[in-house]
Amino acid sequence: DIVHEAEDYFSFQSLAGKRVLVTAGPTKEALDPIRFFSNHSSGKMGAAIAEAAYRAGAEVILITGAKLNVDPGITTIEVVTALDMHREVLNWYPGVDAVIKAAAVADYRPARISRSKIKKTDESMTITMVRNPDILKELGEKKQHQLLIGFAAETDHLDDYAVQKLEKKHLDMLVANHAADGFGGDTNKVTFYYADGKKQTFDTMPKQQIGTRICNALASLFETSETK
Amino acid sequence: DIVHEAEDYFSFQSLAGKRVLVTAGPTKEALDPIRFFSNHSSGKMGAAIAEAAYRAGAEVILITGAKLNVDPGITTIEVVTALDMHREVLNWYPGVDAVIKAAAVADYRPARISRSKIKKTDESMTITMVRNPDILKELGEKKQHQLLIGFAAETDHLDDYAVQKLEKKHLDMLVANHAADGFGGDTNKVTFYYADGKKQTFDTMPKQQIGTRICNALASLFETSETK
Repeated sequence: DIVHEAEDYFSFQSLAGKRVLVTAGPTKEALDPIRFFSNHSSGKMGAAIAEAAYRAGAEVILITGAKLNVDPGITTIEVVTALDMHREVLNWYPGVDAVIKAAAVADYRPARISRSKIKKTDESMTITMVRNPDILKELGEKKQHQLLIGFAAETDHLDDYAVQKLEKKHLDMLVANHAADGFGGDTNKVTFYYADGKKQTFDTMPKQQIGTRICNALASLFETSETK
Repeated sequence: DIVHEAEDYFSFQSLAGKRVLVTAGPTKEALDPIRFFSNHSSGKMGAAIAEAAYRAGAEVILITGAKLNVDPGITTIEVVTALDMHREVLNWYPGVDAVIKAAAVADYRPARISRSKIKKTDESMTITMVRNPDILKELGEKKQHQLLIGFAAETDHLDDYAVQKLEKKHLDMLVANHAADGFGGDTNKVTFYYADGKKQTFDTMPKQQIGTRICNALASLFETSETK
């Protein structure tokens, strides 16, 4: 349709020949067969990025914790938990040229998953949560040729945190937003932070448009890294 | 369409003049602005019941923790937490003739909701959960003219638990299913338990059809209670 054609004009085949891994959505961390921990990620941002990368000519692998309707040309893998996401991402990592990690992976999971429904009592209940693997950190450490784009959704001190995360996790670029702006909706207000210290701030845009901007930025990062 | 007409034939205006409150979906219990506790309820069963009751001529109020697309003639109220659900249900209760409580309301919520995103550490984390109000129990205690239909989704000892719950919560009928059969899907395998000890077992059916059966059962319960 017309919108897609216009977007294609700006990013026309700019990612041709590239294999791009995109992650999307929340993870769900079971407490028992019925109850789980999760977060408000809808997967819409990741889906928009995957579609934009696909339109820009990339081979796209989308690993998602949300049910998403994307172009059937995109290889889509549905996962539930952070451990699933970790396994799939690490498995695909060596063979891809870039990772755009838009998923909101749970930092913690219940220490124990009950196989039967936990019966309620009149008392309060204590749940011990353990850390999930930090996938992005691991990708940064194992980085070879890959370009890495991370995300940060924070409620406070966004700017400081974004700069720190970019550096600590060896990212090429970080997309930051205030949690209240992005989760669940069709638009977001983002800032791009680059490894060279550059920073780009955008007004609120539809997630489709942000997806295209991210893919254009990725194409530029590929150009820069190839001319080094 | 044809399916709806066929279903209408069996339940034709059987709930005309009745005001029926239906609850649906999960609740979400925030830990911070991003993370929450929830469960696998999709709201599809509650939506099917609401539609069936509406087609049977009832005035229907649907209170839901899931985003559902139902007939615009149904008064739909979206809620997030168990406390929201509690407030809305109790508010509508005195003015309705029946409540069909298909929602999977969280039994627990985090004792404290953090106003900012809780930063992850390398350590494990303990979450204290407190009990949410038992809405169905409260409805049973405050029961006047209303008919009450509850649900039980269990992983173990379903039959025993269903009979106990029916009695303890002063229900007129209880719809029981194994957790693995119902959550998320478009079909379910249910058993109806009645206050008089009667029990009806069904094969796996589409949730639409179960909705119609529940509304037919409700119409019979109204007839019985009015001829007493």
